[in-house]
Amino acid sequence: MDLKTVLTSSPGKIILHGEHAVVHGTTALASSLNLRSYLQLISSPDEITLNFPDLDLQGSWDTKTTDETFSALVKYGDDGDAFLDDVALETLKDFAGLSDDITTKNLAVIAFLYLYICIFKSKSSSELPGLKALATSNLPTGAGLGSSAAFSSSLAAGLLLVSGTIPVPSDGTDWTKGHYQVINRWAYQGERVIHGNPSGIDNAISVSGGALRYKAKVFEPLDEMPSLKILLVNTKVARSTKVLVAGVKDRLEKYPGVIRPVFDSIEEISQRCQSALTSLRNIEEKVTSESRDNSSNRCELYQTMEELIDMNQSFLKILGVSHRTIEHICSVTAEFDIHSKLTGAGGGGCVFAVIRPDFSEETLKKVMAKLKDFGYDSWITSIGGVGVSYHPDVEDVKIQGFSLPNNFPA
Amino acid sequence: MDLKTVLTSSPGKIILHGEHAVVHGTTALASSLNLRSYLQLISSPDEITLNFPDLDLQGSWDTKTTDETFSALVKYGDDGDAFLDDVALETLKDFAGLSDDITTKNLAVIAFLYLYICIFKSKSSSELPGLKALATSNLPTGAGLGSSAAFSSSLAAGLLLVSGTIPVPSDGTDWTKGHYQVINRWAYQGERVIHGNPSGIDNAISVSGGALRYKAKVFEPLDEMPSLKILLVNTKVARSTKVLVAGVKDRLEKYPGVIRPVFDSIEEISQRCQSALTSLRNIEEKVTSESRDNSSNRCELYQTMEELIDMNQSFLKILGVSHRTIEHICSVTAEFDIHSKLTGAGGGGCVFAVIRPDFSEETLKKVMAKLKDFGYDSWITSIGGVGVSYHPDVEDVKIQGFSLPNNFPA
Repeated sequence: MDLKTVLTSSPGKIILHGEHAVVHGTTALASSLNLRSYLQLISSPDEITLNFPDLDLQGSWDTKTTDETFSALVKYGDDGDAFLDDVALETLKDFAGLSDDITTKNLAVIAFLYLYICIFKSKSSSELPGLKALATSNLPTGAGLGSSAAFSSSLAAGLLLVSGTIPVPSDGTDWTKGHYQVINRWAYQGERVIHGNPSGIDNAISVSGGALRYKAKVFEPLDEMPSLKILLVNTKVARSTKVLVAGVKDRLEKYPGVIRPVFDSIEEISQRCQSALTSLRNIEEKVTSESRDNSSNRCELYQTMEELIDMNQSFLKILGVSHRTIEHICSVTAEFDIHSKLTGAGGGGCVFAVIRPDFSEETLKKVMAKLKDFGYDSWITSIGGVGVSYHPDVEDVKIQGFSLPNNFPA
Repeated sequence: MDLKTVLTSSPGKIILHGEHAVVHGTTALASSLNLRSYLQLISSPDEITLNFPDLDLQGSWDTKTTDETFSALVKYGDDGDAFLDDVALETLKDFAGLSDDITTKNLAVIAFLYLYICIFKSKSSSELPGLKALATSNLPTGAGLGSSAAFSSSLAAGLLLVSGTIPVPSDGTDWTKGHYQVINRWAYQGERVIHGNPSGIDNAISVSGGALRYKAKVFEPLDEMPSLKILLVNTKVARSTKVLVAGVKDRLEKYPGVIRPVFDSIEEISQRCQSALTSLRNIEEKVTSESRDNSSNRCELYQTMEELIDMNQSFLKILGVSHRTIEHICSVTAEFDIHSKLTGAGGGGCVFAVIRPDFSEETLKKVMAKLKDFGYDSWITSIGGVGVSYHPDVEDVKIQGFSLPNNFPA
């Protein structure tokens, strides 16, 4: 082990357009969300110690016992990657003492131990090393923002660095494409432990950053994605994605002649949004030289994005996946000429709005205060930013402008 | 003149589904609204006296002068109907003393005098008779509920009765199809004086009652229309239909791939609503014999109508013709599980909801009180009822259950 300490971070994601319709063959657009999950790994003798303060979770395991228990259970795929089969995974749950209580936080522990064992066992047959892990996040959990994928991506990158499977990025920031693929493969394994059968979208976005479009289970990264300021609001209403997806299917079966055209409209909305993002990116690249012309073009593009958001929110309501709180948040922000829509499964979860660069900071504060009065949490953040990252030191994180949680050690 | 006194009434209308989309070739469904315009004509010597208390309008004209002024100006069409050309219409406005002030209420006076002169001049070349006219209405004006068509229909029927052009209905209630056609022709003339170039839908519904579908300027009455209880709410927000229609066109031009499918969905909504209405009517006809089975079918049909209303309200929002007050009313009624949509041009105007027969009267009162607190007027009324009617006496009106305005003389 070359590195004594590594700090990695990965973004969450939002669906810009196409949620639900994507299940029925429509294009969806997803983007990285610059609320991030952070992981610090510190080399430490004889023990694996986890400290996930956000989840109010701590635990430690003796490396030797862990090694003895799992060395014999680890299997290897054709690609040389170690894995634990379903039986071994149950053993892992028992070992962690969490088999009877499969909550989100416990699944995070299982995912940690899974990746820890398998990544080190893939690299060498030597003994598992001692590690202290501190994980923390700006992302609310269970809100459809890909918090588990962000955790898995940071974890995969951190463990791959510590194990020496991938190097520190040569220019200090970017890995090679192949390294990102390795991180993504392991991040998906973490997601699989947590979610069972994930689509792979959340970890793909978390690793790559930027935006991607997906249709019929094929992902395609968008080369051009401007960084956009957004307002993100959490309804704090829990919901079942499964039930919501089934509800859309029911509505389609009852009203095919009404709902099929809705999918066509949403397809077009995704396409138009992608075009607007590309145009905005192109304008921003030229912004210094021809700033006057650009300003009116940019204004039109923001207006288009706002109109697409408004229309899609209504389409999602027609699909039956909106919620009283979502409507409420949309109407509160509308009073300030902020155009919001749900993101992801709906039925609660989060709502977002794209904020124009010239939007008054003071007004934004008023909006957020008003949302707070109604009991909603909100954040000003950005989308389209970088994916999984290695941070040489904590100060560097701050310099890069990431919002490091308060409970993270400097 | 056989009749010394006649009392007529005609209903307003609401658009159930298809407003705006109808301009782009989609089917719309319109229904009579049992808020009515009432007209009483009383034979009287030497003067035409108008009293329209709702419009705070009174006036009187000497019959002899009127006759002398217009006898020479009246022209006759191929059908033998008298008419005033545009020049004569200007003379009429001058004569009424209203040429400089073309407000709704003044147009009602012009329409009255126009029909009065032309109907009597069509019937005979004798002198115009003296008449006292009292008009009053439960319909708000300028709210898209066809108040002018209801006024024109009552007026046409009243004048045609007094002039002896049509007889008192033989069975006391219904005229022949031909008589309704005559009334409708004159009602359209009244609408034309008031609106310039009306579609003819409002007067058609007001005369026939029930419901009709229209598409590509063709009207088709629906034979089967159940009488449905509705909650009608007036936003009291004035708007320009012309501006709203233009806004939809702009949106279609900017987002054809999003908006064209919306028209397809609305077409299907109109079709599905028509089917539901027919099924409901069929069930109601059989309701006494097989009431248990019917009750669950009926419940499903009401649910379908509610879902169609919810979905269409969102589509209309996508077309850009909703309004803050409309959304607000929809959200207030939604709290009581009442499903509302705008009707007509939108951008203000009225909102309606179909109320299930078993919906609690007490809750309805609560909803209306809450709406009142927010400054909205609301009515419980019905749709699908009778069209233009002759009432042998005022008591008879009450027996028929019509809500005669307070200012109407018993």
